[in-house]
Amino acid sequence: MEQIPINADRLIRDLKHLRSIGAVGTGVVRPAFSASDMHARSWLKERFKEANLEATIDGVANVFGRSRMEGPALLIGSHSDTQPEGGWLDGALGVVYGLEVARSLAENDKTKHMAIDVVSWQDEESNFLSCLGSRSWCGTLNEELEKTATSREGEKLRDALTRVGLNNTDRLLIEEDRYVGYLEAHIEQGNYLEDAGEKIGIVTAIVGIRAFIITFRGEQNHAGTTTMQRRKDAATAMFEAAHRINQEFPSVVNENTVWTIGNAVIEPGASSIVPGLAELTLQFRDQDEKVLDLLEGTVEEIISDIRSRGVISVDIRPGREVIKPSKMHAEFQMFLEESARLITPNSWRYMPSAAGHDPMVIHEKLPCGMLFIPSIGGISHNFKEDSHETDIILGCEVLATGAAAILKKTGT
Amino acid sequence: MEQIPINADRLIRDLKHLRSIGAVGTGVVRPAFSASDMHARSWLKERFKEANLEATIDGVANVFGRSRMEGPALLIGSHSDTQPEGGWLDGALGVVYGLEVARSLAENDKTKHMAIDVVSWQDEESNFLSCLGSRSWCGTLNEELEKTATSREGEKLRDALTRVGLNNTDRLLIEEDRYVGYLEAHIEQGNYLEDAGEKIGIVTAIVGIRAFIITFRGEQNHAGTTTMQRRKDAATAMFEAAHRINQEFPSVVNENTVWTIGNAVIEPGASSIVPGLAELTLQFRDQDEKVLDLLEGTVEEIISDIRSRGVISVDIRPGREVIKPSKMHAEFQMFLEESARLITPNSWRYMPSAAGHDPMVIHEKLPCGMLFIPSIGGISHNFKEDSHETDIILGCEVLATGAAAILKKTGT
Repeated sequence: MEQIPINADRLIRDLKHLRSIGAVGTGVVRPAFSASDMHARSWLKERFKEANLEATIDGVANVFGRSRMEGPALLIGSHSDTQPEGGWLDGALGVVYGLEVARSLAENDKTKHMAIDVVSWQDEESNFLSCLGSRSWCGTLNEELEKTATSREGEKLRDALTRVGLNNTDRLLIEEDRYVGYLEAHIEQGNYLEDAGEKIGIVTAIVGIRAFIITFRGEQNHAGTTTMQRRKDAATAMFEAAHRINQEFPSVVNENTVWTIGNAVIEPGASSIVPGLAELTLQFRDQDEKVLDLLEGTVEEIISDIRSRGVISVDIRPGREVIKPSKMHAEFQMFLEESARLITPNSWRYMPSAAGHDPMVIHEKLPCGMLFIPSIGGISHNFKEDSHETDIILGCEVLATGAAAILKKTGT
Repeated sequence: MEQIPINADRLIRDLKHLRSIGAVGTGVVRPAFSASDMHARSWLKERFKEANLEATIDGVANVFGRSRMEGPALLIGSHSDTQPEGGWLDGALGVVYGLEVARSLAENDKTKHMAIDVVSWQDEESNFLSCLGSRSWCGTLNEELEKTATSREGEKLRDALTRVGLNNTDRLLIEEDRYVGYLEAHIEQGNYLEDAGEKIGIVTAIVGIRAFIITFRGEQNHAGTTTMQRRKDAATAMFEAAHRINQEFPSVVNENTVWTIGNAVIEPGASSIVPGLAELTLQFRDQDEKVLDLLEGTVEEIISDIRSRGVISVDIRPGREVIKPSKMHAEFQMFLEESARLITPNSWRYMPSAAGHDPMVIHEKLPCGMLFIPSIGGISHNFKEDSHETDIILGCEVLATGAAAILKKTGT
């Protein structure tokens, strides 16, 4: 494997220019289909053109830069829309990395024949509909969902498309024959790399998420005159279940598993009334379905145990649609590892992504690979989000070198 | 000890008449200073007069029936105001018992010289100010409290007094030299007697109440990307504390102790956010200060343990004014026991009162005794509140016989 040089100045300049579009203090406000978002997409389209890519903004505002090389192609990108109070690198980093990898490979005699397509997906951050752009491109966008999709400000998706002049524009669809796969780089949005002093995370999978709402029903009663023996205290059962979940989960999990009891409600919630109802919200995430199954089994056991005493009835229902773990392609991981070993030996690791990304959608159609660079303080979805410039440059080098190796392997 | 006969028909007839004033379905709506409350007080005054008592409605609407005997006197009564949706016996029972005991003792040659004063206190149920009437009579009514006292409907106490024509009426004050003490009978408002198939509860003390709000502060964070090791989850600490309270209290308490975690709040309370703050409301009640101290100590130990780990900060503050246990007079308990043994052997018990009553105020000035009769299903503060007629009659017999014995003992 040979290291592919990149143009670090150009990379940083483009990232900083993109940061200026929708800038608010140190952060960026570029929610999908806002004026600043569309401005950024037009600017990206011009950059794609300059890089000699066939540039298109499609019918859902995905910005595509298609290589004029025949392929097989590697698609590289991320999203340029942001959270309502977004950081400057969340999404933008991966898009400009794609652009820089396309340019760098085109400028290198050994790689200039390789086809790198670049993309900025629309609305990964769920202003109207999460991963709208990648779903549309993969042909998995549900029509019903699209009809009801409404922005945080209350605008309908179809009205937004009319407003920005895209209502009659074609939507690009995946050409499965063209692509070897999809690569996306992203800031980590967590602390693993920073804590370990490492520079590159090679994503093994985007974690699956299961969430449950567990309801405990007892009998509301006077807190003075109802003996402890007669009580059917829903909150007592909830506290037991919550504490046992926190005590018993560690024996089942691995170091990357996370779980959260993010809310609990007691009714009627008065100091002098024995609670008749209590409800908690539990969520857990892991890259491995087996771990998720074991955690769910542990919850079921705790609930059965409480139910079996015949005092408190317990219901459990899903708290959200189940998200299955999205495995990244094994061979892509290997190539990214080799690239990381070459460029930054001993300061990289394999890790899951605890946050969601477009590859959750795309991996159902194409092999996917993801790469993380460190986030300062693990902060994201926040104006304070940042990464060190040296880490930003290094990440792009690893991505470019890995991308070239993947395309080389396919015989391009 | 000799059993004092009462007039059961008259007792029940008066109770039923009082029930008709402010009747709503099976319940009674007679909040302090309402038209129905004042109607009931006028009716009681007439009944006191008929019983040859000097009857007065004083400046806070206490209804007094003063015996024409010289004394020492025993004061017997309760309150005739009700909860906004009250039961027919809560308070009323004790007032009519007082009246019936006064009549019965006056009709009996052996006891007709005994001085029984009868009272219906105003606003035990805290429409304007809890135990307004007994506080006023004991001289412990705080002027500041009285100034700010406002009814559930928003009326000021002084306006209510003007409305019912009592603003220029004298308030009766305790004549400590006159009284041997105060007796009050009440429905149990709980299940101990019914569960045990017993007829009489002799109250040992009205329980003390301590309440605390315990606040746990950690760090709000992303529920996906924050590792379990880095988390400062306020809710996890709260669940541990709550469960440990429920697990560790039983080793300190007696069979009558009650404790309740009536509310818990988590902030921000979202499924995907590690909670930064969690707060629980804890209350416990017992008749013994030592038990209350031990419980408070147990809470402090659990909190110290959590604090000592250095992850979550914990604050504890009082959730209400501390209420100390009110001990009933030992000798009165003995006389009531003797009376119960005589009239209903093997179906009485000593027990604390888990609910509050006027003797909490009065026991600071006079020896007090309380007696309970069973509540059907333990229901109170509810239109469904009821007691069996045979139990009502038996309770009055025990009270009359006990009262006569107390006065006999004083040499009257």
